[in-house]
Amino acid sequence: MSDAARGRGLYLDDLSVGQQFVTASHALDEAQIKAFAAQFDPQPFHLDAEAAKATVFKGLVASGWHTAAITMRLLVESVPLAGGLIGLGGSLTWPRPTRADDVLTVHGEVTDVAPSQSRSDRGTIGISAETRNQRGEVLQKFTATLMVPRRPAA
Amino acid sequence: MSDAARGRGLYLDDLSVGQQFVTASHALDEAQIKAFAAQFDPQPFHLDAEAAKATVFKGLVASGWHTAAITMRLLVESVPLAGGLIGLGGSLTWPRPTRADDVLTVHGEVTDVAPSQSRSDRGTIGISAETRNQRGEVLQKFTATLMVPRRPAA
Repeated sequence: MSDAARGRGLYLDDLSVGQQFVTASHALDEAQIKAFAAQFDPQPFHLDAEAAKATVFKGLVASGWHTAAITMRLLVESVPLAGGLIGLGGSLTWPRPTRADDVLTVHGEVTDVAPSQSRSDRGTIGISAETRNQRGEVLQKFTATLMVPRRPAA
Repeated sequence: MSDAARGRGLYLDDLSVGQQFVTASHALDEAQIKAFAAQFDPQPFHLDAEAAKATVFKGLVASGWHTAAITMRLLVESVPLAGGLIGLGGSLTWPRPTRADDVLTVHGEVTDVAPSQSRSDRGTIGISAETRNQRGEVLQKFTATLMVPRRPAA
């Protein structure tokens, strides 16, 4: 996506299937993992590195919802859709757990561009995004449908 | 689910298709919405009630990921699976936005129970869960696959 496009925000009309994007990166750590878990996912394998050793994860891991939330932050910062990133829904898998030393980057692609049949001012796009760590290991696969405005008439 | 089952944690062997559950409730407010958004989804319709009026939402709304994270908290507190709630993946839709005066409760059902073919100590379950507000309006629909341990031999 060009710098010019980033500056003004992308409309549906600017997007096409196959366009790719890579976000900025986010470095995780134990404190972030525990803070998110204490608020939203208070389970031993997210809260206590020692207790986590005895679990199926063999050590502290981030909540999948924490990985999803960081992914959203990276998308918001790096994918400049006009009107913002407004998700209607999506699907997630977590092929491997996110750990405290992971640095997350999202690699994505536009998979569908569909003008609305009933509303001439908007449409939807499909995106597919992988959240990878610094070794290229895939921590989360995410597909989503987003609402995107059409470019207003000049 | 019986009190006895809650006390010890539920194994795959304790679960059957059609079992239903209702979680405790969580009252949202503007401060929670803005705090989550500032960290994970910094967009005007999640951060600023005045700016949000000019958006498609016509007012402040919670990030969908905030609704998802609160849903997880409610599930962790109310659904006592042995080994914890370990999600392998799932799908989400947000039929209507979550707002600051909403009180969230999750209503769920077990939709699948599948012992592992290769690992005798575990299996997966499917769940379907609706996150509803105090008026019964559905804010999020969520289906997920969870890993659940089998009951150890006595």
